[in-house]
Amino acid sequence: MIIVMNQNATKEQIDSVEKKLLDLGFKTHPIVGDVKTIIGAIGDRRLLNTHSISTMPGVESLVPIMKPYKLAGKELKHDPTIVTVGDVRVGDNEVIVMAGPCAIENEEIYVETAKRVKAAGAKILRGGAFKPRTSPYAFQGLEEDGLKIMATAREVTGLKLVTEVVDTRDVDLVASYADIIQIGARNMQNFRLLKEVGMHKKPVLLKRGVSATIEEWLMAAEYIISEGNPDVILCERGIRTFETATRNTIDMSAIPVVKELSHLPIVLDPSHAAGTWKYVDPLAKGAIATGADGLIIEVHSQPDCALCDGQQSLIPSRFEQLMKELEPVALAVGRKL
Amino acid sequence: MIIVMNQNATKEQIDSVEKKLLDLGFKTHPIVGDVKTIIGAIGDRRLLNTHSISTMPGVESLVPIMKPYKLAGKELKHDPTIVTVGDVRVGDNEVIVMAGPCAIENEEIYVETAKRVKAAGAKILRGGAFKPRTSPYAFQGLEEDGLKIMATAREVTGLKLVTEVVDTRDVDLVASYADIIQIGARNMQNFRLLKEVGMHKKPVLLKRGVSATIEEWLMAAEYIISEGNPDVILCERGIRTFETATRNTIDMSAIPVVKELSHLPIVLDPSHAAGTWKYVDPLAKGAIATGADGLIIEVHSQPDCALCDGQQSLIPSRFEQLMKELEPVALAVGRKL
Amino acid sequence: MIIVMNQNATKEQIDSVEKKLLDLGFKTHPIVGDVKTIIGAIGDRRLLNTHSISTMPGVESLVPIMKPYKLAGKELKHDPTIVTVGDVRVGDNEVIVMAGPCAIENEEIYVETAKRVKAAGAKILRGGAFKPRTSPYAFQGLEEDGLKIMATAREVTGLKLVTEVVDTRDVDLVASYADIIQIGARNMQNFRLLKEVGMHKKPVLLKRGVSATIEEWLMAAEYIISEGNPDVILCERGIRTFETATRNTIDMSAIPVVKELSHLPIVLDPSHAAGTWKYVDPLAKGAIATGADGLIIEVHSQPDCALCDGQQSLIPSRFEQLMKELEPVALAVGRKL
Amino acid sequence: MIIVMNQNATKEQIDSVEKKLLDLGFKTHPIVGDVKTIIGAIGDRRLLNTHSISTMPGVESLVPIMKPYKLAGKELKHDPTIVTVGDVRVGDNEVIVMAGPCAIENEEIYVETAKRVKAAGAKILRGGAFKPRTSPYAFQGLEEDGLKIMATAREVTGLKLVTEVVDTRDVDLVASYADIIQIGARNMQNFRLLKEVGMHKKPVLLKRGVSATIEEWLMAAEYIISEGNPDVILCERGIRTFETATRNTIDMSAIPVVKELSHLPIVLDPSHAAGTWKYVDPLAKGAIATGADGLIIEVHSQPDCALCDGQQSLIPSRFEQLMKELEPVALAVGRKL
Repeated sequence: MIIVMNQNATKEQIDSVEKKLLDLGFKTHPIVGDVKTIIGAIGDRRLLNTHSISTMPGVESLVPIMKPYKLAGKELKHDPTIVTVGDVRVGDNEVIVMAGPCAIENEEIYVETAKRVKAAGAKILRGGAFKPRTSPYAFQGLEEDGLKIMATAREVTGLKLVTEVVDTRDVDLVASYADIIQIGARNMQNFRLLKEVGMHKKPVLLKRGVSATIEEWLMAAEYIISEGNPDVILCERGIRTFETATRNTIDMSAIPVVKELSHLPIVLDPSHAAGTWKYVDPLAKGAIATGADGLIIEVHSQPDCALCDGQQSLIPSRFEQLMKELEPVALAVGRKL
Repeated sequence: MIIVMNQNATKEQIDSVEKKLLDLGFKTHPIVGDVKTIIGAIGDRRLLNTHSISTMPGVESLVPIMKPYKLAGKELKHDPTIVTVGDVRVGDNEVIVMAGPCAIENEEIYVETAKRVKAAGAKILRGGAFKPRTSPYAFQGLEEDGLKIMATAREVTGLKLVTEVVDTRDVDLVASYADIIQIGARNMQNFRLLKEVGMHKKPVLLKRGVSATIEEWLMAAEYIISEGNPDVILCERGIRTFETATRNTIDMSAIPVVKELSHLPIVLDPSHAAGTWKYVDPLAKGAIATGADGLIIEVHSQPDCALCDGQQSLIPSRFEQLMKELEPVALAVGRKL
Repeated sequence: MIIVMNQNATKEQIDSVEKKLLDLGFKTHPIVGDVKTIIGAIGDRRLLNTHSISTMPGVESLVPIMKPYKLAGKELKHDPTIVTVGDVRVGDNEVIVMAGPCAIENEEIYVETAKRVKAAGAKILRGGAFKPRTSPYAFQGLEEDGLKIMATAREVTGLKLVTEVVDTRDVDLVASYADIIQIGARNMQNFRLLKEVGMHKKPVLLKRGVSATIEEWLMAAEYIISEGNPDVILCERGIRTFETATRNTIDMSAIPVVKELSHLPIVLDPSHAAGTWKYVDPLAKGAIATGADGLIIEVHSQPDCALCDGQQSLIPSRFEQLMKELEPVALAVGRKL
Repeated sequence: MIIVMNQNATKEQIDSVEKKLLDLGFKTHPIVGDVKTIIGAIGDRRLLNTHSISTMPGVESLVPIMKPYKLAGKELKHDPTIVTVGDVRVGDNEVIVMAGPCAIENEEIYVETAKRVKAAGAKILRGGAFKPRTSPYAFQGLEEDGLKIMATAREVTGLKLVTEVVDTRDVDLVASYADIIQIGARNMQNFRLLKEVGMHKKPVLLKRGVSATIEEWLMAAEYIISEGNPDVILCERGIRTFETATRNTIDMSAIPVVKELSHLPIVLDPSHAAGTWKYVDPLAKGAIATGADGLIIEVHSQPDCALCDGQQSLIPSRFEQLMKELEPVALAVGRKL
């Protein structure tokens, strides 16, 4: 941590900041510049969360040197984390595709879609039983009935299940059905929910908040891991920018940035990012070439009847075609699909 | 709702969209342009949430004409909503100031601060017992013990209490202490929490999400009102932009926009927006002159010991000075303080 | 400047960075932390612009401590700059209002509008003879004919003139008519144009780029001042964010931030920021209460015929009303209008 | 164009808007909804740029249906534009790589770098003789001497040259050396400069402004094409968002969006977007898989001595390695390199 004193800070103010840092257990290194003095402080940054150096007289700003996350970062763990879901390994050489409808509407359509995505090569089946919707008048999901339909589809196809939880009160219920628990973008900083899924043993798919920095996203992962659950899969799904041509702006550079800063696997959701099925194909290819460990893609056998997000769903035949075209891209970057 | 057909849409595609709209109960008005055809559809937009016109062949885009909110908007209710909290009326001619520390740390300091803000003219006392913190290692609040301290301060000062709830499981508890329940920025789209506070009779202070559009914010209010609780106070607290000179960018124009679109009162939080106490004074004055119905300001008697956000807290003497300076500004725009 | 070495940097890499800094004339202060080493470097940051420390092996990042601007900042000049335009003083106690149409369309309407804004209390007349327009098919301005019309209006009313230049080749021409030369938001980083106006003696109104940080804006001012022209008036006119309810988001906190970092005066343009005349009134009041040194407001006697931006123009009678209402706000914060 | 009347618009107001539209030569189709009336207007949108319907009493908003660009869009020209630069064809099946240093510093290093990028497979050589720099104290380019060095490198290697122009006064000079004239991000809305390069016959590389929407970017291309120069290559180089882990956020979805809306070729600049050489490799692969027609990559033989942007430059050996790895990615999506 660097403490930057302002231009007019007095000797007394500088001494008093240094003294406080020493009291907190830091080692200090003042550097007197031509205009300003700065103080280098060596010690555990977490101690500073609970004491305010920044409001002391004469202090201009604090510059952190160490990352605020420990367990999600590479400082303590260098090897990539591979999240295993039965025989599926997310973060290993194989690019894993998760697919399925946004919401679960009825068993027949859902199981039918599940069979199609399985046949095309998907390893994990997605589906929403609890839906966070911007409008209170929109379809909110079938809740436990939806989870039961998912379980049926798993039985029929052997696919693993990923589904979202939106309320701390439902975590046990969702965990009892899901193979991977999803935390949606809107709940990325619902810290109580993060803690709750951190106390379960199920892998967590942690979507990036629509305006979360990568650092905040890794801090959200830190919440989960620090409760004892190391199996976090990060999911980039587009961030909010000024551009309106797409629903959100996919942050493709998040893939190499996460690989640089963290050991956790990262998958990409081109469907929610783009908001239209037309752009799913190029973005899916781009994500794999950029180094994503997997994809999560909306597929619906009757998108024009979909109770939510039909516009961004692929029909099964397009998904099959896409899966065929993704394979050479994966091979071109030394991975398999 | 306007349905824009793309340039190459066939007669059959256009007819088929029109037919679907008619089946859904809409009246339709096709307009054939030189290049594109559009279809005007008259009816309840909410019906369209559950049926996907947008994925039908030949459809380019949908343009909504009506606002998605009903209860939070002015279509059905023109008169301003005045939220009464005992004898305090938010949204009336008087500008209401809420003040107090970010988090509650100990009874002595808290009650002392409460007395000071009361003496300076604040009507409502703020304080956090449950804190949403970016880092799992940061102080998370005293929970029920904090609420008890708040209740003591209310007894001593007569101030009303506003405090945040972050978990659906705590709503009953928080509601049993608070006079106003706060929904924080990070939970603005925690729809389950919105529904839960909608089922209580306590007024709600609804902070704008850091990247929420004003429309999404009003939709969040709609969630609360549609559950039966009409007493929503909107709170602008800064949005996330590219600018880093302030913690967030206060969206001052949200005040007149909300006044144009909604009947709900709006207050401003300059402390969280700016992230530093130095800018609280000018922004507080600016907010009142722009038409805010109130302010929520962080005040702490020992900001350099504050367990969170000390940097953005005013010391009581500065707050007293600010309150004196705010009065002429309120009078200048025809209001009292 | 702080050089942060990465976790795995070798002793040789650290030594070699230190040696390079010393060669460049810096004094160095290495601090060896538990995990990382950092090097404090004392010297003129500008030297580093031309040598890349950041690509040396083992370097993680550079953290600047000093501001990159010298002449626009407060380090060398503490007293506020007052820009004098004849007898008008921008940056002094009086709040200065600039008003007039966006573009100049014909002499009669323009002179008529000029008389009305003069009568209402404006001190400076705005008008565009060279218009930067997003569409090549939109009205691009009357060019020199427009400047002549402005000169006529100055003769008739005695108002000073502010008008925009968009091409280095036109600076002499525009300077020969204008009292204040405007650099528009789209040209804030047209560095050649900045240098050119820096070589004239006319005051410059420097609008903030729609996505410029305050630091970049002050660097643009630095370009002008470093060519010898100290008379820069900063103008906040809204930044680009995700919010679409207003044309741009007015960054009201830019006012106190600029006052903190710079000695230059700052005025606010509520018309371009809001994009609609309805919000000009509250934002103008808010700007003055927040501490702006002036306002620039679009006024047009026939906004429904305006060749550009009619929607954001006030009619003269509303402007007169607004001027009356602004006065008590200015008084409330210790200024006059 | 759809004109949305507000809820309280009177019959007279609606009639008067309709009459005005008819006077302007539009055909009108009013649709009377339950709450609001809208008026569909068929005609040339460009006529409306010069007349303000939006300020007429009772008008709430205008909704454009047609795109504002004609020549840059697909309405009039469906086939992809292939920009030919000698024997190099940008926009055809082959992915074209442009490479070289950011700025030209001396002949020896530049020619050496040119030879290396040629050997590795680049077709076009980049280099800046006129540099737009945020700081007036930073290296501003060698100007004509830099262009002469570029010409020498062309002679030696046979590579085509792309270089930036930043001032209308230099367009003739730059055009006399360059094979492709670059318009940088900061000048994307320097409309005078766009017109000037539109009057030359040289192809133009048009970088996207850091906060420009795709629509604004295509409007900038429209400026160039409408002056008679159809040879525009679009270049995505990252947009400004709240994320600070990368210098800018590469908008990878701009590739399919541009392919959907325009016939112009699009290339990607991973170096400026990422701001660090470490992320150039994955983003370059991702761009090709997503469908980019080319790449522009910074390569410098001595990046630690580079006078600007050394941090984002690849050394030649890394560039050679990257070119080898890009080939299978291009093949995987049916293109060659």
